[in-house]
Amino acid sequence: MASTNVPKTCKVILADTIAKKLLGEVHEMLVKTQSERPAKPTLAAFLANDDPAAAQYAEWSKKTCEENGFAFDLHRVDKENLEEAIVAANNDDAVDGIIVYYPIWTNNQQQDRYIQETVALSKDVEGLCHTHLFNMYHNARFLDPPANRKKSILPCTPLAIVKALEHLQIYNPILAHGNRLFGKTVTVINRSEVNGRPLAALLANDGATVYSVDITGVQLFSRGSGLKQPRHQVLDKEGWGLKDVLPLSDVVIGGVPVESFKVPTDLIRDGAVCVNFSSYRNFDGPAVKEKASIYVPSIGKVTIAVLLRNLVRLIHNRSAAEGVAKE
Amino acid sequence: MASTNVPKTCKVILADTIAKKLLGEVHEMLVKTQSERPAKPTLAAFLANDDPAAAQYAEWSKKTCEENGFAFDLHRVDKENLEEAIVAANNDDAVDGIIVYYPIWTNNQQQDRYIQETVALSKDVEGLCHTHLFNMYHNARFLDPPANRKKSILPCTPLAIVKALEHLQIYNPILAHGNRLFGKTVTVINRSEVNGRPLAALLANDGATVYSVDITGVQLFSRGSGLKQPRHQVLDKEGWGLKDVLPLSDVVIGGVPVESFKVPTDLIRDGAVCVNFSSYRNFDGPAVKEKASIYVPSIGKVTIAVLLRNLVRLIHNRSAAEGVAKE
Repeated sequence: MASTNVPKTCKVILADTIAKKLLGEVHEMLVKTQSERPAKPTLAAFLANDDPAAAQYAEWSKKTCEENGFAFDLHRVDKENLEEAIVAANNDDAVDGIIVYYPIWTNNQQQDRYIQETVALSKDVEGLCHTHLFNMYHNARFLDPPANRKKSILPCTPLAIVKALEHLQIYNPILAHGNRLFGKTVTVINRSEVNGRPLAALLANDGATVYSVDITGVQLFSRGSGLKQPRHQVLDKEGWGLKDVLPLSDVVIGGVPVESFKVPTDLIRDGAVCVNFSSYRNFDGPAVKEKASIYVPSIGKVTIAVLLRNLVRLIHNRSAAEGVAKE
Repeated sequence: MASTNVPKTCKVILADTIAKKLLGEVHEMLVKTQSERPAKPTLAAFLANDDPAAAQYAEWSKKTCEENGFAFDLHRVDKENLEEAIVAANNDDAVDGIIVYYPIWTNNQQQDRYIQETVALSKDVEGLCHTHLFNMYHNARFLDPPANRKKSILPCTPLAIVKALEHLQIYNPILAHGNRLFGKTVTVINRSEVNGRPLAALLANDGATVYSVDITGVQLFSRGSGLKQPRHQVLDKEGWGLKDVLPLSDVVIGGVPVESFKVPTDLIRDGAVCVNFSSYRNFDGPAVKEKASIYVPSIGKVTIAVLLRNLVRLIHNRSAAEGVAKE
């Protein structure tokens, strides 16, 4: 009986809620951009693998694009024709951004990396070109210092998690921009080049103490005592594991792409914030709800909203570049 | 040179900033109350000691009252006449709230306690009558369940600190009301009956894990794993000291009324939030600013704003009671 009056201690926040807020911001940015450049922004997407998850993600992206005033142009291409198709899109003025579904060469990650670099910087909506990645790791926010008119693009899934943590008020707006995670300890389980490592870097650059965990071990990403460093440094934590870092963590982020992996609930700190970005559930839902203060079971819809946000930024960057050229 | 571009990592938040926001709320509540009861609310204050700090606090209270549309009626009385003076104020319809400056009988705290209980519950603006204290410790928010029209009054300094932590976004508004400190660890240094113990209870009732520290040792106040308890429980932590609890604490609150006491900065966690409510500085200012994310050096002005907030609540409670009587 009493339980009906007691509020649930764990708040489950769905990606949809966060995505809707972001799409509202995207809409405002789009209206502003279209006052100067009325054409409907176009995202060209390239599907060159047989992964049903990629096809599904493309389907969702198409739906979200069309519902929010963007054109989504899906190209199914053979992987051998992919490079030329991207070059054509790079040179097509009607294309504002380019997305490619990875992995393509599952046995040769280097070739996927080559394709990422083939996308023109000005159309790199996923933030995977080296210049964008370099700026992210170096905590550089603009492409054109010191003018600072063109924002550097951040990779979609890591940025989606940042936006989720902002929504959850883990970023403290009382603190100076760029330091808003100061005092927070975060564990990120996954250190892939596409998601986990950039995410650990982004969070540490914003002031957090981040434990980055994968099967090879634990690394500490942080700006040091009193945030004295302008960007994160990385330290190997020899012999450490989840048992050492989970009990210290205010926020636990799971991104392990394996169905059998579960974050051990008994190691999670009481009242922690738990976020899953794997397509599998990295947390034992019912158990984690007995322990966490906030649980975000998935992030995919936020990632798509961030993709559109990045696309509007690219269009804005192009206008800024043309503005400079005209001066 | 570079330092001019780097934002300071520690944000110093002055009591004035927090007080102004609260006084804005008080003004709105007052306008609403006065639409039904136009008289200027009157606070009767009793000064029966020779403490210059009390006289100073009375002076500030008077100024704040008058600036915000309240009458402040200061009575300097001999301690032997204090009880009768309070009874007269209890019976005076023109008096809305009563404040007494403590300590009075410095060698007999029990007599101060007797005076606190002499103040009528309906005029107890300081929240020190047993019924108010009992409700606070039991996490009961109303005086008249189940109608819940009359809010129970909380003691001013502890509530001022709660309001400060709300302003600093340590209370997470994403979480359910009453659980908004879930996941936060707080150390409160001071366990007096007037300030430290009620404060530890309030914070633990709101979901925090609280270490309450005084010269007799450390106690843990908490609602247990997953906030399963409706109100806090207290556990003695035998042998524990500041060295054990400070490194665990997201928030450190100092209230030691001794000039020589300083919280050891080296034990404070990097990025912690530090709040001082002692009239002495319990933190080493320059050192703490190198380590904390937020530092609040004093709380006095917030306490006065909370006093007025409590006064408007008392007037509202009286209207609610009369409303019921008329029905």
